[in-house]
This record gives sequence, structure tokens and C-alpha cells, in this order.
Amino acid sequence: MDDLKKKKKNKKKKTSCKESGMLYQKLFKSEWNQKQEFNKRPSKIGRRSLSRSISQSSTDSYSSAASYTDSSDDETSPRDKQQKNSKGNGDFCIKNIKQADFGRREIEIAEQEMPALMALRKRAQGEKPLAGAKVVGCTHITAQTAVLMETLSALGAQCRWAACNIYSTQNEVAAALAEGGFSVFAWKGESEDDFWWCIDRCVNVEGWQPNMRINCIMLSKAGKLCVPAMNVNDSVTKQKFDNLYCCRESILDGLKRTTDVMFGGKQVVVCGYGEVGKGCCAALKAMGSIVYVTEIDPICALQACMDGFRLVKLNEVIRQVDIVITCTGNKNVVVREYLDRMKNGCIVCNMGHSNTEIDVASLRTPELTWERVRSQVDHVIWPDGKRVVLLAEGRLLNLSCSTVPTFVLSITATTQALALIELYNAPEGRYKQDVYLLPKKMDEYVASLHLPTFDAHLTELTDEQAKYLGLNKNGPFKPNYYR
Amino acid sequence: MDDLKKKKKNKKKKTSCKESGMLYQKLFKSEWNQKQEFNKRPSKIGRRSLSRSISQSSTDSYSSAASYTDSSDDETSPRDKQQKNSKGNGDFCIKNIKQADFGRREIEIAEQEMPALMALRKRAQGEKPLAGAKVVGCTHITAQTAVLMETLSALGAQCRWAACNIYSTQNEVAAALAEGGFSVFAWKGESEDDFWWCIDRCVNVEGWQPNMRINCIMLSKAGKLCVPAMNVNDSVTKQKFDNLYCCRESILDGLKRTTDVMFGGKQVVVCGYGEVGKGCCAALKAMGSIVYVTEIDPICALQACMDGFRLVKLNEVIRQVDIVITCTGNKNVVVREYLDRMKNGCIVCNMGHSNTEIDVASLRTPELTWERVRSQVDHVIWPDGKRVVLLAEGRLLNLSCSTVPTFVLSITATTQALALIELYNAPEGRYKQDVYLLPKKMDEYVASLHLPTFDAHLTELTDEQAKYLGLNKNGPFKPNYYR
Amino acid sequence: MDDLKKKKKNKKKKTSCKESGMLYQKLFKSEWNQKQEFNKRPSKIGRRSLSRSISQSSTDSYSSAASYTDSSDDETSPRDKQQKNSKGNGDFCIKNIKQADFGRREIEIAEQEMPALMALRKRAQGEKPLAGAKVVGCTHITAQTAVLMETLSALGAQCRWAACNIYSTQNEVAAALAEGGFSVFAWKGESEDDFWWCIDRCVNVEGWQPNMRINCIMLSKAGKLCVPAMNVNDSVTKQKFDNLYCCRESILDGLKRTTDVMFGGKQVVVCGYGEVGKGCCAALKAMGSIVYVTEIDPICALQACMDGFRLVKLNEVIRQVDIVITCTGNKNVVVREYLDRMKNGCIVCNMGHSNTEIDVASLRTPELTWERVRSQVDHVIWPDGKRVVLLAEGRLLNLSCSTVPTFVLSITATTQALALIELYNAPEGRYKQDVYLLPKKMDEYVASLHLPTFDAHLTELTDEQAKYLGLNKNGPFKPNYYR
Amino acid sequence: MDDLKKKKKNKKKKTSCKESGMLYQKLFKSEWNQKQEFNKRPSKIGRRSLSRSISQSSTDSYSSAASYTDSSDDETSPRDKQQKNSKGNGDFCIKNIKQADFGRREIEIAEQEMPALMALRKRAQGEKPLAGAKVVGCTHITAQTAVLMETLSALGAQCRWAACNIYSTQNEVAAALAEGGFSVFAWKGESEDDFWWCIDRCVNVEGWQPNMRINCIMLSKAGKLCVPAMNVNDSVTKQKFDNLYCCRESILDGLKRTTDVMFGGKQVVVCGYGEVGKGCCAALKAMGSIVYVTEIDPICALQACMDGFRLVKLNEVIRQVDIVITCTGNKNVVVREYLDRMKNGCIVCNMGHSNTEIDVASLRTPELTWERVRSQVDHVIWPDGKRVVLLAEGRLLNLSCSTVPTFVLSITATTQALALIELYNAPEGRYKQDVYLLPKKMDEYVASLHLPTFDAHLTELTDEQAKYLGLNKNGPFKPNYYR
Repeated sequence: MDDLKKKKKNKKKKTSCKESGMLYQKLFKSEWNQKQEFNKRPSKIGRRSLSRSISQSSTDSYSSAASYTDSSDDETSPRDKQQKNSKGNGDFCIKNIKQADFGRREIEIAEQEMPALMALRKRAQGEKPLAGAKVVGCTHITAQTAVLMETLSALGAQCRWAACNIYSTQNEVAAALAEGGFSVFAWKGESEDDFWWCIDRCVNVEGWQPNMRINCIMLSKAGKLCVPAMNVNDSVTKQKFDNLYCCRESILDGLKRTTDVMFGGKQVVVCGYGEVGKGCCAALKAMGSIVYVTEIDPICALQACMDGFRLVKLNEVIRQVDIVITCTGNKNVVVREYLDRMKNGCIVCNMGHSNTEIDVASLRTPELTWERVRSQVDHVIWPDGKRVVLLAEGRLLNLSCSTVPTFVLSITATTQALALIELYNAPEGRYKQDVYLLPKKMDEYVASLHLPTFDAHLTELTDEQAKYLGLNKNGPFKPNYYR
Repeated sequence: MDDLKKKKKNKKKKTSCKESGMLYQKLFKSEWNQKQEFNKRPSKIGRRSLSRSISQSSTDSYSSAASYTDSSDDETSPRDKQQKNSKGNGDFCIKNIKQADFGRREIEIAEQEMPALMALRKRAQGEKPLAGAKVVGCTHITAQTAVLMETLSALGAQCRWAACNIYSTQNEVAAALAEGGFSVFAWKGESEDDFWWCIDRCVNVEGWQPNMRINCIMLSKAGKLCVPAMNVNDSVTKQKFDNLYCCRESILDGLKRTTDVMFGGKQVVVCGYGEVGKGCCAALKAMGSIVYVTEIDPICALQACMDGFRLVKLNEVIRQVDIVITCTGNKNVVVREYLDRMKNGCIVCNMGHSNTEIDVASLRTPELTWERVRSQVDHVIWPDGKRVVLLAEGRLLNLSCSTVPTFVLSITATTQALALIELYNAPEGRYKQDVYLLPKKMDEYVASLHLPTFDAHLTELTDEQAKYLGLNKNGPFKPNYYR
Repeated sequence: MDDLKKKKKNKKKKTSCKESGMLYQKLFKSEWNQKQEFNKRPSKIGRRSLSRSISQSSTDSYSSAASYTDSSDDETSPRDKQQKNSKGNGDFCIKNIKQADFGRREIEIAEQEMPALMALRKRAQGEKPLAGAKVVGCTHITAQTAVLMETLSALGAQCRWAACNIYSTQNEVAAALAEGGFSVFAWKGESEDDFWWCIDRCVNVEGWQPNMRINCIMLSKAGKLCVPAMNVNDSVTKQKFDNLYCCRESILDGLKRTTDVMFGGKQVVVCGYGEVGKGCCAALKAMGSIVYVTEIDPICALQACMDGFRLVKLNEVIRQVDIVITCTGNKNVVVREYLDRMKNGCIVCNMGHSNTEIDVASLRTPELTWERVRSQVDHVIWPDGKRVVLLAEGRLLNLSCSTVPTFVLSITATTQALALIELYNAPEGRYKQDVYLLPKKMDEYVASLHLPTFDAHLTELTDEQAKYLGLNKNGPFKPNYYR
Repeated sequence: MDDLKKKKKNKKKKTSCKESGMLYQKLFKSEWNQKQEFNKRPSKIGRRSLSRSISQSSTDSYSSAASYTDSSDDETSPRDKQQKNSKGNGDFCIKNIKQADFGRREIEIAEQEMPALMALRKRAQGEKPLAGAKVVGCTHITAQTAVLMETLSALGAQCRWAACNIYSTQNEVAAALAEGGFSVFAWKGESEDDFWWCIDRCVNVEGWQPNMRINCIMLSKAGKLCVPAMNVNDSVTKQKFDNLYCCRESILDGLKRTTDVMFGGKQVVVCGYGEVGKGCCAALKAMGSIVYVTEIDPICALQACMDGFRLVKLNEVIRQVDIVITCTGNKNVVVREYLDRMKNGCIVCNMGHSNTEIDVASLRTPELTWERVRSQVDHVIWPDGKRVVLLAEGRLLNLSCSTVPTFVLSITATTQALALIELYNAPEGRYKQDVYLLPKKMDEYVASLHLPTFDAHLTELTDEQAKYLGLNKNGPFKPNYYR
């Protein structure tokens, strides 16, 4: 432990690899903002020096299907247990290796819903494009992640994995992975200290120098991970699915599960008309809501107009709306002044990038009463009896109160797998220790692997047509900037 | 008890009041079909002679918000307890009178969401249009029902109430009602025998002859309830809300809560294009599903075509669809033959009128394995490993797996209240011992009471315009057959 | 001529047959309102006594495809010409019998688009369900009407026909009909006097007493037409098609052809949320307009709310909207006061039942300048330069500025044909000299005849299902009031 | 003339300025393809050497509102007339200078619909950001173009203009421009020879060396126009409007005006799911059509799936569809083989980039009969009587058979004006003799100038928010690749 502390200190000084992506910068900023919140949680050890670097994502969790974890489990910390899998391997730290069979069944079900990764395994058969790759990962540890890890392994990679979130690990899946020979360090309900300990154990192992990583802000902070990386978040396929298509469904799902609100006839203001906002607006309009939009960017504003939404400033409609949804990626979009003017029963929630959009802190004042009416639902009550319904305490509604379809996770996982293959096999010099956008062609490849799910039949260019368009018949078909 | 049995026997012979509505006939039929299912449930007493008349609705329940019922409650049957409210009145039978305060709070919250009933109370102030009315009711006993009962009481009526469902009673609400002086006979988890005992106690009381009733098939079977009744189910307002608008939302909600399915790109077949089917189709189309429709009625079929849905026979698409939804009110729409041909992972559910649409019984054969994967979700597994995902065992998805918005309940309750006022105050001879459609004008009145919720501003006819159209300025504005 | 005058006078006194339909009453009212307009048109003879009974429909016309009429045609009035068809028959009065071949080709094309009538002919083969029927008709005389007439003839009827509109006759079609032996009295560009002369010649013929009629307000005024009639306008199929589905398309078409307006982002107020209003609102919302609705009926108002439209009074939005559309069937919905407050460039049009909805007369004042900028488009210019764009002088936009799809005409014509068959073959006593609604079953039959157009496959009830539902397997499937 | 020929020859050799944009390349290619078509037109002079470089756009024309051109105009060629405006200036060549007043009125009306350009004039008042600029333009010469030219002039530029199309010039607008002092060389109905003569006169004038140009492929061919240029076509704003939003409306408009087809229930296949395809699909789906999509790009294909369209190969649905629409930018998408298999009455049209998508030439075979049934509508008739309805002979439907809303033209014109300002005022070295994308910020500025039209209110970032996001409060708000 002290070791880790020291290392971390050192690393901070000499961190040389450039985390240049704007996305990454913002994530770091939002971590700072969440420091306070995290500190409030009971912590066995209370190492404040670390808490600042726990990201929001490490405390949010998907409201996933029921876990098979036995609630009568013994309370011994996994760190204090010595477990081995059936082959005698003990290089992992999980809740209970005996749950491996349950986990295997979960993984098998997930495999059915992630045909693209299964197709990758099949197509690569014989070949091992990742032979020699040593991958460390830090993600939610779920059945879907397991399908990814086993795919990487099938393609030749060695994998070590830690959880990116202290609540989200499916213990039985972790057990199945450990049983299958993966070095997994994760369990549901880790403490802060556990969290960093797991990452440390995952990354820093004698004689095993990782050369690839997945989703690894934490990892790069924790150590020597100066390897090139793909920014899979900004790939077209992932972005459209995570933002537009996924949010189109999860806004409805999240609101229903928390509030049972009827959408028809409701007046809603959506702050921000990027992909997320577009998805929310389209869904609510289709369900019979009257939707207003706020925007700062005139191009998105004009799009909102053409799509049939009145473009307003928040203060123009705040008194009359039934639901307020933030999707800006910005901070303090809904401040106390607006909250004060909302009508009784108004629902406020956040679909945007971080938990800064609603100024929740401003509601923690003595004259307001908070009442938890359901999981993830608070009534904030004004002295005159007015209630504002705050969802997920301003954190991401779609992460907190709805589920992410396996199909979306499949796209993300496939993109990650292909990104690793590209990085690992690229000619020397193509990628430096930096963050890159996925090449268009691989983006297209990910998409093509998911078409069979829809029984969708792609047309092929004839030679003559390809020549006319000046394109290769196998793509890429669009310029890089195309979305 | 024996008393009740005897009475029931007698009643059956001399039942003279005509339950003419087609709806009622169908309900009775579906009860018969459900006999078998009911018989499978453990029954303390096993009075088969009664079981046949328990309707489906008495075992389904809204998946409502958490009940405040103390789970550590003593296990004494309410029938064996002697309770009195704070005024010394003991003419009720509920779980625990001490929960009254909790229940009162629930009722107060519900009042905020049922502005129309509150408006009725206000407008009638001073007047008692139901003075002398003796109303027996048999419905779900929830906070929303309580608002209705207290409204009837405020308008002058005396009320006695029993539950229409053995699971759905909110015990604390029942307590608040009993504390408020209502004679309520209901608790969560009644046995069959309890169910009929409650109805008997509700209806048959010395020196109190009911002259009005609400939702009372059970009641009319149980006794001398030959009073006129309104068929509120077929009022335009209720029908559009319960069917079209409510189902448009609950199909999405029910599918998401049970399966987390992504709607985009899914192929769905909706059986039946009545109001329910229209709502389901519109919602799924808006979410990016590809929707096919089956119909028997050429007019509805043509509407489906014009609305952009391919009209098919079920066997033409059964192999390719991802979701099958029944909305026909018919029986055996999805039979074993179709279930055999569905693809792996196909979801099957019922939004229609009864639980007969999917031939679930045909799936109870030895070669098929049932696996309960979540509450309300079964995987039925074929010998070759194919899984069909059956929701709510073929019962109503919207009742079982989603919630009914309070707004819809408000419309129903207001319609019921107005129906009682109309019946009770109509000049003698207008209504006989039969079931009537709500007069158009009252239907319009219910609608008008709900407009303020949407800040909706109705236009009034000028005298000149009313004369031109040959209408009264206050309505009714449409012929009775208008929907 | 004098003869006709006299007859008409007499007829008016002794008219005994009850034209009870509300629709008919309104039509008569609107005729009166249009008197003034008609009188303004140049009239060779100026018989004012007649002008009052010319309906609006006789001056509006479909903006149909190019007519093949030879513009160099001689100017002799058809009434002064003596023509015979190739079989020597001269009992008709049309423009030019030599155009028959052109007309036949038009009819053949129309036959392809009216498969239901063709199917009727086929199914009846051998049988003559209208044998002995003597039908007089007064409709637009177009290729589609010709297909109807020839169908009636194929089913055994004798037909005589006059035009219901002085502009809409396709001369070459009339010629083809005359050549085929039909007694047709119609040409494009009739005078008022011609109009009544044609009707007279059509109806009053020695030794031929009509016993059936189609669309015959004019006819019934002109004579002894006391025969039962079907109100085909209120049949479900026709109503949904003429109103909801047809208007959904024609509102866009009519606005584009006249003004080239871009719909995206436009603010629109639609007055009236009946079927026509619903169609207009749905189309404009889909095209990205922001739509407000006004209503007098609370049920329709609530539907507008649930469909996602703000319900307002006209004066609340009149200053801000870009387009005003009336669909009420009412009068003086848009009065001068509102017109004064519209913004520059606001477009005003009428999709409703008559030309009374916009108070166009109030715009005929000296301070306003009218400028005809295109056919059917007037700029009304206020002293400060503000322009209001008035379409079709307040007459029906869909009739004046867009076309009615043949498919809709096919439904209407088929309904008419079946109505005649029903009336003619009904057991004595079923129908008296009154106006009746089409029986549900025939309505369903019309719909079923149009399903093949969409390659739509209807499902048939099994015996068991029909029994369960208490229905005949061949319908009717819904109660009469169902829409 | 000989002079021009020679110059052109020379220019071709020494053309050094790089027309690098892919768009430009494709345009050139499609010109070659259209050579044949052009050659078929009667040509007084028949200079084949030139014909190859006449672009499609020079023969297509907007089906604009009625032109006020006097049809009885004398037939003298404008080239043979000597005209002067009221100030004695004769440096122009147009039909008739006397029509200037009519044209001025048209321009004034257009000004009302192009508020962004008017705002530009206002904001620049006093300043002359284009002082010294010498702009040559080659575009459609319409009232909207006139507003652009007069804006450029108000900002300090000198302009000379020729038509890019031999049919589209509004003669009275050209007259108004000439009267206003612009050197315009254009009239409606130019011959090929006229076309090049006008361009020559426009560009090659003693002592006036153009340093800026608009839409000038022709110009650059004709001469020394090696100046930097903006590719305004690929600006986000223009692209979304020209493609997505405009096509969403014009597909409906174009189909209705030509065929009066009813959209409800029609089966449609849309080839290509780029912006144009997305617009077409959305509109038709909203109108109740059943839409299939073909795609070559898996990313767009996956989007089509998620938007609810079945992705097919053309041959899978070609037999069953009612309408085929091409939007690919590709060639030979609909070939004879497919045309042979279409069903009777199938409508075929092109919304894509050039006229190559439908292989129209393959239909010019002896066994097929062509019948022109309306302007822009041909029936191609197979020996068995089957008719395929071909629109605009495969040229662009939206250009040929519908109108482009002024609002879209306003966006284009404003973008062009700002592009000139940017180019002209950029620090030396920023732009070379090449084609550039409009800077994001200017794109945003164009959008912001159009927001007032929709009464849209943009939100401004607070200082704190701008800092948080790392953005300038005035934009640009998005990365360059954002669409």
C-alpha cells in the first residue's frame, strides 16, 4: 500500500505521456468537482490524497439485472482471502471463485447478444493478431466485458483487469473469468482503498509489462502506461449509438422507472441540442410531449428550429415546464434561481456528460427539505410546500436509472477490440504515445459486423461504380469528418 | 360463510338484472378460461365452487411503487382481529389501523395528481348531489381510489368498499380510509375465501341497502345489486386514455423494465390494430422499430396500411420478428405452432384484453424448460437451445410490468364519479336496471376538468357560431358515436 | 326553359322528402352564404331566382391534370349543337363527341387505379344486382366517375348524369361516356343557366322515372327524387380517407403549390382538431413545424394535448404564427380583428367544410389592397405595407390547390356503388325516403376491396375465435359507432 | 467569338489553379456524361468543342414562379440590341431594360425573405469590407441572386455576372440589375453559343481584373480565375439545409406535383442513406409510406436500421415497390434489369447529385414506348402494357419538379457573401489558390443570422461556463468536423 502511494506520487511528477483529448481534460475537471461528494461517503481509511482521483464513473453504476451474488456471503474482505481456481492459479482477487458456474452461464447469454465479437473470433481463427499483446483494462466488470476479454484472449492477447467502479462488478462473472485463467481484481462494494489496491495489483506485476490498455485514465495515473491509445468514444458508430440512439430510448426509460410520469401533453425543456439532446427531443416529441430547446451554438439552434422545437432561453419557460432535462456537457445550466421558479412537481434530471449541469449543491440549504421517495428520486420541498423532483441527485439519468442495451455495449466492445488490433499491428511510427481517432475504415467494419443482427443486407459497389466515385470497394466510404 | 355460499347459490338463480354490455360478457368468459390457472394456486380452503368466479383482475396487480406495509407485521388474519378507529368505529376489516397516518400522506400526494376530482369537490361545495346515495365499490384499493371515495363522500354519498384483487390493496391506504370512517374490507394477500368474505361483508349489512355501485361484476354476483349502471369503460375519454394514449407509453415501459431491449431496428409484429394496437405501433415506430400488423377487420387493416405498417398474416413474419405483441381481445392468437417457429430470443407479450391471447398452456409440455430469469420474465427453452422470452406469463404486460399513470386513473375516477351523479339525479325512468353509456356531455365535462393540467385554453363558441352549427354553447359538441 | 322555371317553382312547394342529415343542412346553409359570390360572376341571363341554389361545389374545381380539350374548339354552345354517337343515339349533351377516343384512354388509365370497382364487376359477373335500377347522378364528371358509371351499368343499372360543377367536367370523358351510350349532360364552362338546364334534361325525361340517385341535393331540388339515400359521407372508410388521410397529404401539397413555403420551423395554428385538423397537425408536425391548436370541444382538446400540441385561443398566438389553417366547419373563425393582428407574410387558408371559416368579406374594404400574385394566391396589403397571403379566397384549399388522389376517389365511388346495391336490394320497408348510414358490413367490404392495392393480407378468424368473440367470421367486426 | 475559342484553348493548357475538391471533380465527370444528352438538343451553331463543358445545371431550371416576361417580346437576340440604362450605361446584355420596374418589385419581395443579407448590410454600415473586391459570378439570375449582388455591392464590391443556366434567368430581374448599374449578361433561353459569349463578356473586360468569384467552374474554365475560393457547399449549415431539411420537403412536393400519388401505404425504396436519403426517408415514413433503404456504407446502413428502415438490396424489393428514389451520387444505381422487373405503375425518380443514377439511356430501345403525360412525367411502356413512370427523365427531381424555398437560398447566399468577406480580408498567406472549407465560426455566424426568422432565442455562455468548456463565448462552439 505504501508502495502504491509512493509510486503514485512519483508517477505524477514524471507523467510524460500526453493525454491530449478534450474529453480527457473534461473528465479530469469533473473529477475535481466530485471530490466533495466522494468525501462524504464513509471511508474506512479516509485517504484524502487519493479521493480526488476517483472519477464519477467509479461510483455510478448501471442498474443492471439482478446479480446472483449470494447475500448471505461471508463478510471477509476478498483481499484477506486466499483463493485458487481449479487449475491452481491464484493470480486474481475476487469475491468467491465458487460462483464461477453461475458466471459462465451469464457470459454465455451475453455471447448470444454480442454477435460481432463472436464473429471476430471466428474470422480470426487460426490467426492471432494480438499474439504477444499484454492488455490491462479498467472497466465495469460484467458479462459483456467478459465476452470482450475472452475475445481478446482468443486473438492472442494476455489480459489483466480491474474494475472502474466500486459497485458495478458482477461477482459471479469475475469468478468465471478467474476460473478461466484471467487475472481479475474486482468485487462489488470495494472501498476506495480497495479500488486503488486492485488497480495496483492489476498493473504492477513482476515481469509483465503491459503494452496495451483499455479505458485507462485510472491506469495511466497509476503507472507506466505510456502506450498509444485510441479514442473510441469519438468514433462515429459508438457516438451515434451511445448518444443519439441510446439516449432516445433511455430518456423515456429513466423517467418512467423513476417517476411513472405520463409523457403525453407534458411540457419539457431540453437544455442542449447535441446528439444527446436530439435523441431526447425526438423521443419525447414522439410520445406527445411539447418540447422546448435551449442552445448556445447557432448551428445546433437552427437544427432545433427546423426539427420543430421552439428555441428559448431557460428563463422564458422555466415557470411552465413539467420536466427539465440537461444535455449540455456544461456546468451550472440549472441553477438555484431556476429551481426556485419551477412549478410544483417539476421533474429535473441530467442526461449530459457530467454531474455538474444541475447545481445540486445549491439545494442543500436549511430552508429546503429533502425527502427520498424512491431509489434515485428525491423530493426537494420548498417552505411553501412546492416540490421539485430531482432524479439521481443530478448524476447521469441514463446510467443511474435505466439500462444500457447489450447491443450498445457490443458496439463499444467491438470497437475497443478492433482499436487494439489496429494499434498492435500498425507499422512502427504510425502511432506515438498519444490518443488517436479510430480510422474510418475500422469504424465502418464495426458497423458491418452488427448489420446481421438486423438481417440487413448491404449493397456492394460494382467495379464501375467504385471507379466513378473514386472509392475502394471495401471502403472507407466517407471522409473522416463525416458523421 | 355458509351463509354466503347459500346466498350466492340463490342469487344465481334469481339474478334478474341484465348485464348486457359486450364487455361484461367477455369478462365472464375469460373468467372461465382462467379457472384452471387459479386452481393451481395454493388455496387454504379449496372451495372450487367459488374459484371459477374469481376474475383475472383479482390476481393481477399494478406493479406500483413500494408499499409502506411493515413486512414484520404479525401474521394474524385481519378477519380474526378486532380493530376500531380513533372514533370507536369498527365497521371495517383491514390489515392494521395503525398505518393510517402513512396512508393519509399517500392520499395527499395522490390528491395533487387528481385535480379534476378536487375541482369537483370545490364546485359542488354546499351542494350534495349524492346525498342519500349508498355506494358499494369493488376496485383496487389504492391512494387514487381513496381520493375517489372521499370525493363521493364530500358530495354526500355513503360508501362501502371491497378489493377487486387479492394482491393490490395498499394496506396503509385502507387504514387511512377506515380511520376516516369508511367501511373498507380489504388487505394485501387475501385468500380466495377472504376475497368473497370481504365482498359479502361489504354488501350485505343490516339496514343498509346500496343503491349505487362501481365496477361491480363481483358485487352483482354476490347479491341484490340490481341497480342501473354506467359503462364507463366505453366513454370516449376513458377509452382513448386507457387504450391509445396509455398503451403508447406502457408498451415501451413494460418491455424495457422486463427485458432492457433496444427498440431501434427491431422487427415487431403487433396483432390487432384497435386503439391498443394503434398505440403500440405508433410508439414502436417512433422508437425506430420496424412494425408489422395483423388484423381481421378490413377497416382497421386499411388504417394500418395508411399509417405505414405492412399488413401480414402472422405466419408470414413469425420466423423473422424479434418481438410479438398481442392486442386483439381474442383467444389463441399466438399458438404453439407459432411459438415453435419463433427465432431464438424472440420476446412474446400481451397488451390485449385478457390472458387468453397467447396459448401459454401449450408451452407447459415436458420437452420445454421454463426458466424464470426475472420477476415477470420467463425463458422457455426448446430442446435445441432456442429461448423464447415470455413476459408476465401472457397476462397483461401493461398491468403487470409497467405502471398506469395517475393521470389516467384520474380520468377513470372522475368519469365514475360523474356517472354516479348522473344516475342518481336523473329523472325517474331515464335509466332502468341496465348498463348505459355515459352521456356525451358528461364525457366532455370530464375532459374539460383535465385541461387545466396542460394549461390548455378552450375556445368558446360565439352565439352566432353556436346558432350556425345548431349546437348548445356548452355542448355536447359531437354526436354520441363520435370517437 | 320556361318549362324548367315553372317546374322548379312547383317542386319547391311540394318537396316532401326529408333531407334530414346534419351534413345536408349545413350544405344548404353554406349555399346561401355563397350567393353573393356567385352573383358577381358574369351571367349571360342573370336569373337571380336560381343563383341562390348553386352550391359552392359547383364553382370550385379540382386542379386536375391537363385536360385534352382542344382549345381551338368552336365556340358554339353544346346546347345549340345536334350530335349523335356512332350508334345514332343523341340523348346527351356534351362538348364534342369526336373526343371520345381520348376520353376512353383516360378511363382506361383510371380503371387501373380503381381496382375495387373492377373487382366488383368481376365478382358480380353473370348477376345483375342493379337490374332495373334507374340511377341519376350529379357529380364531377371525370374519368373516375366514368369508371363508377360503367360499373353501375355492368351491374345492370341505367344511368343518366349531370355535372355538379360548371368547371370540372373533362369534356373528352363526357364524350367517351356518350359514345358508350350514357345520357350525359355536361361540359366544361357551363353557365348558370346551362347548369340547371343540364340537370333538368338529366332528370326529367319522358317515360324514365329514376329510382336511385347519387350526390343529389341539386337533383332533389330539381324534382321528384323522393327516394331513399345513403349518407356515404359518414361511412368510416370514406371519412377517414377523405378527412384524416387525405388532408394529411393535401395540406402540405396545397401550401407548397401555392406558396412554396418551407415548413421546417414555421409556427402554425390549426383551428379545429377533428379528423381534418388531426391530419393537418400530424403532417405539419412531421415536417418540423411548431403547431398550436384551437378547439371548442374538450374531448378533442384533450386529444390535441396528448398528441403534443399546445391548446390555445387564437388571440394568444395570432401575432406570432406564420400560417393559420381553419378546419372547424364553423363560420367566422378568422375574423378581421385577427387578420389585422397577423404578422407580415402570414399565410391564411381553409381546409374546413365550407368557405365561411375565414371572414374574407371583411377584407374587402377600401384601405386594403388586393394583389393577385398567382392563381389562387392573393396578397392582401395593409396601409403600413403588411401583407397577408390569402389562399383560394378562403375556399377549400384541398379542393382548389391540390389534387385528390385517385385512391380516395376509388373508395368514395366503391362506397357509392355498394350503397346503391344495398338500397336497391334491401327487403321492402328497411329503408324509407330518408338518408341512411351505410351498414357497417358494407363499409368493411369497401375496405377489404382496397387491401390488395397494398398487398395487405387479412387474417381470418378461426371458428373457435369467432365463437369466443361472438362474431360472424365475415363481419361486421365492430359496433356501428366504431370509428 | 473566335477570340473566345482561342482563349479557351489556351486556358485549358495553362490552367494551373488546383480545383482539388472532390465535389468539383465529380461535377466535371458528370458533365462528360451529359455530353450526349446535350448534343441531342438543337443547336444553331453546333460547336461540339464547347458542348462538353456545359454542365447539367445549365439546362435544368428551378420551376420557379411565373415570370413576368412579356411573351409577345420581339424576337431580336439581345446580342444584337444596343440598350442603355437610364444613366446611359450600356455595359450589360439582357432581354429588355424596360422591365426593370417589374424586376425591382420582385427583388423587394425577395428582400423580405432574406433577412440575413439585409442584416449584413445593416451591420456593415459605414464599413466596406469588400471595398476593392472585383467579383465575377455565374449563377441562376433570380431575385434572390439580385439580393446577394446588391449586398456585395453595399459592402463595397464591384460585380459582373453571367447566368449558369440557359433557361433560369428572370429577365425582369436582370433588367433591374442592369438599371442599377450591374454588368449582367444573361437572358432566358440562351443558346449554347450565347451561354459562352455571356461568360466571356462577363469575365474578359479591358482594365478590370476580377479577384473574387462565386460558383465559377465555368468561369475558371473560361479564363484567368486563379483566385482562392471557399467550398460553401460543404459548410454544415448549407449542407443540412440543402440536403436534409430541403429534401425532406421537396421529395413530397416533387412527387405530388408530378404524379398526385398518395403516400399513405405506398412501398418505397430509397437508394442511399446520406443526408438526402435521410430527409426523403423521414418525410415518407411520416406520411405513412413503408420505406426500404439500400446502402453501401455500413455506418449509414446501421443508422437506417436504427431509424426503423429495413436495409435491403434493390433486387430484393424491386418487384413490390411503388416508388424508387435514388439519392446516392453514384451512377447506374437503377439499371434496365431493375426497370424490367418493376411493377406496373412504379414511379422512378432521382434526388441525388447528378443525372447518372438512373440508367435512362437503357430505356431508349425500340420495344419500349415513351409517352409524355405531363411536363416532366414520362410513361415508359413495355410490350406487355406495363408502365413505369419516369420523372424528369432521371434528372434531379427537386430541381426540376419542385421549388427551392427562399429560406434555403438565403442561407446559401449569406454563406457566399461571408466567404467572400473572409477570403478578401484574410491576412496574406492564409489562403492560396485553392478551395477551402468555410471556417466553423463563419458557418455559425450564418446560422445565427437566420435565427430571428424563427423567433429563436440563443443562450449565451457565462464567463464561468466558457472557461469550464474551454471555449470563446462567441464561438466557434464545435470542432470543425462536427455536423
